[in-house]
Amino acid sequence: MVGGSTPVFDEIIVSTALMNQVISFHDVSGVLVCQAGCVLEELSRHVEARGFVMPLDLGAKGSCHIGGNVATNAGGLRFLRYGSLRGTVLGLEVVLADGTVLNGLTTLRKDNTGYDLKQLFIGSEGTLGVITAVSILCPPKPSAVSVAFLGCPGFAEVLQTFRTCRAMLGEILSAFEFMDAACMELVRHHLRLACPVQESPFYVLIETSGSAAGHDAEKLSGFLEQVLGSGLVTDGTLATDQRRIQVWRLGPSFPRHLKSERGLGPSTLWALRERITEALSRDGYVYKYDLSLPLDRLYDLVSDLRTRLGPRARHVVGYGHLGDGNLHLNVTAEAFSASLLGALEPYVYEWTARQRGSVSAEHGLGFKKKDVLGYSKPPAAVRLMRQLKALLDPKGILNPYKTLPART
Amino acid sequence: MVGGSTPVFDEIIVSTALMNQVISFHDVSGVLVCQAGCVLEELSRHVEARGFVMPLDLGAKGSCHIGGNVATNAGGLRFLRYGSLRGTVLGLEVVLADGTVLNGLTTLRKDNTGYDLKQLFIGSEGTLGVITAVSILCPPKPSAVSVAFLGCPGFAEVLQTFRTCRAMLGEILSAFEFMDAACMELVRHHLRLACPVQESPFYVLIETSGSAAGHDAEKLSGFLEQVLGSGLVTDGTLATDQRRIQVWRLGPSFPRHLKSERGLGPSTLWALRERITEALSRDGYVYKYDLSLPLDRLYDLVSDLRTRLGPRARHVVGYGHLGDGNLHLNVTAEAFSASLLGALEPYVYEWTARQRGSVSAEHGLGFKKKDVLGYSKPPAAVRLMRQLKALLDPKGILNPYKTLPART
Repeated sequence: MVGGSTPVFDEIIVSTALMNQVISFHDVSGVLVCQAGCVLEELSRHVEARGFVMPLDLGAKGSCHIGGNVATNAGGLRFLRYGSLRGTVLGLEVVLADGTVLNGLTTLRKDNTGYDLKQLFIGSEGTLGVITAVSILCPPKPSAVSVAFLGCPGFAEVLQTFRTCRAMLGEILSAFEFMDAACMELVRHHLRLACPVQESPFYVLIETSGSAAGHDAEKLSGFLEQVLGSGLVTDGTLATDQRRIQVWRLGPSFPRHLKSERGLGPSTLWALRERITEALSRDGYVYKYDLSLPLDRLYDLVSDLRTRLGPRARHVVGYGHLGDGNLHLNVTAEAFSASLLGALEPYVYEWTARQRGSVSAEHGLGFKKKDVLGYSKPPAAVRLMRQLKALLDPKGILNPYKTLPART
Repeated sequence: MVGGSTPVFDEIIVSTALMNQVISFHDVSGVLVCQAGCVLEELSRHVEARGFVMPLDLGAKGSCHIGGNVATNAGGLRFLRYGSLRGTVLGLEVVLADGTVLNGLTTLRKDNTGYDLKQLFIGSEGTLGVITAVSILCPPKPSAVSVAFLGCPGFAEVLQTFRTCRAMLGEILSAFEFMDAACMELVRHHLRLACPVQESPFYVLIETSGSAAGHDAEKLSGFLEQVLGSGLVTDGTLATDQRRIQVWRLGPSFPRHLKSERGLGPSTLWALRERITEALSRDGYVYKYDLSLPLDRLYDLVSDLRTRLGPRARHVVGYGHLGDGNLHLNVTAEAFSASLLGALEPYVYEWTARQRGSVSAEHGLGFKKKDVLGYSKPPAAVRLMRQLKALLDPKGILNPYKTLPART
């Protein structure tokens, strides 16, 4: 996405792949301590066997290392529920540019002794130090997970559904994702996935995770009745852990429960959202943007670009973690073209800056986006970042050419 | 507690009391933007009227400023549920030592563009910059709140109750506090508060917050049956929003619901825990310690000190946020005595350091505890903290004499 871990010129690559040991797990507090090269999915299995879950989950879980997750402040699919790594990472062991080992591998939830140095390294993409071990707080594993996939007639209704959902599902809401009709078209066409509801301009995926299946089901059906009855949602499908799929339709006067059937469960519905990236890559050359925007304006940029680009783009699609205000905007074309890029940039960045958004919500800046930092951060902030880099890595040996813009 | 905001020698005091305006509140995202001098309780009222709550709550809410809360990385009573300010603070406006205004007052949940500079100022006690405005994420207001007050026969049972509680109450658990019999004796004697359960060696206060009162009540009674039936808890009282108090007793073969009566609701039970500090101050001179320790060893220090101090101490008491591993250890005596202090320090700090605990869990270091930083942080970390201070405040004009130890 941004080439944060890709060597470009004369770098030496340090691999942490052999540093793959779990150091400890405490089954009352849920605190996991492990080396940086542990693969996220293996850590998930380790803590799930003990009744906990990792506070983060992402598509790359089968190969990504926890050290890299922390170094890039990874967001992902559980962010809405368990929050940022800045809150769940409790301690780090880091090797500094001069070889000093900074041992801050504590397992304490609260520690207000001096400055919180680990925060410097979370999200700094390896440019301030090399993370070698991580201490992280794991939440208890929810015993019930349900996924609802809904069709919405417009983006205003998507937002209103989110508002209703926060109020009615409260503490069990664990994901609120959206995708537009163009995304659905791509996963149907390229991956042959079936749309589980009537065709709609927008689709919403809601996940709940709770400790009592019966209570969660009651909350969910109350919510579905409300959004179907008020016309915010035109059609819905619900899947539970028990691999039961239920289909609702909006009847003449109130929502009607159509049928229940055995299906493939929540993962079938999640695949529609998670495999959009794969479908996009089969559609041609992809221009990718990962933006944070105010919720009210989140989709305006997609519509705006469709008009602006016209037939020059094959598809302009929008999807993402609506609950976090995070839009994944993607434009596909037959092949790379400088003129299409010129129509996209700096337009997309300027549009985002006008809304005081972020030009990189969760993927960092790396090599490819370091020069757009100024769209989201004022000059005084960029100056202070350079000072921190000079303090911690005076010779510029840590992940060089990344994160901070080239001096002009 | 630590004299973090107390001028000592030649300081000039900057008050933010007139900077008390709410700048904006967004009623879908729950993001509040306000000036640093806003009083926490007034912000709570502001967002509660709009269906949200502040992500932090503490005893001083009627007078403390949000800017100070952020500058000291305040913990408090909602930490277990909503996590650290490092996750919920979304943006800060800070004035640097050279007068530069660092404008980072964004309202985005996700922003991975460059280093997260606001983390430098959270918890740095005003020594790196002056926070002038805050953007913070408020969670939706729970519609049902219940408080259970339980008696436990020993500390092992307190821990086992916590483990059971995490499993059975899951996402609705919002506080797990404990106090020992000595604390109860103090609030009864000095404040004439009544103990709502049978006398026990330990007491636990559990708060749940959820979006459906009926579901929460079912989860709670399942939990109470379990802990009473298994002997982890000998006696319990439950209070709900509806100001109903229910009393449970452990019967011959299973827990028995004794009676329901109209009472004063959750605040009556919270008062027992919240007013311990007040009771302590009426007991004589108080030596106060705010420690993070591994859960298994959390209470050993209290027992240990009781033996060590013998009749030299009037009371040695332990209470705190068990869910966060945070022990408030207090020792009272007729008057201050250097010999009692000598018996306490560095003993308490050394004991804590051996457990890799924190010598200041939530109150910071300020003036009084700056010299104990080394018990919780290694020399390399202290060195880097000094470098950050020199970078951001080369003339040492920001909250001087605080947080970092005097050079020896």
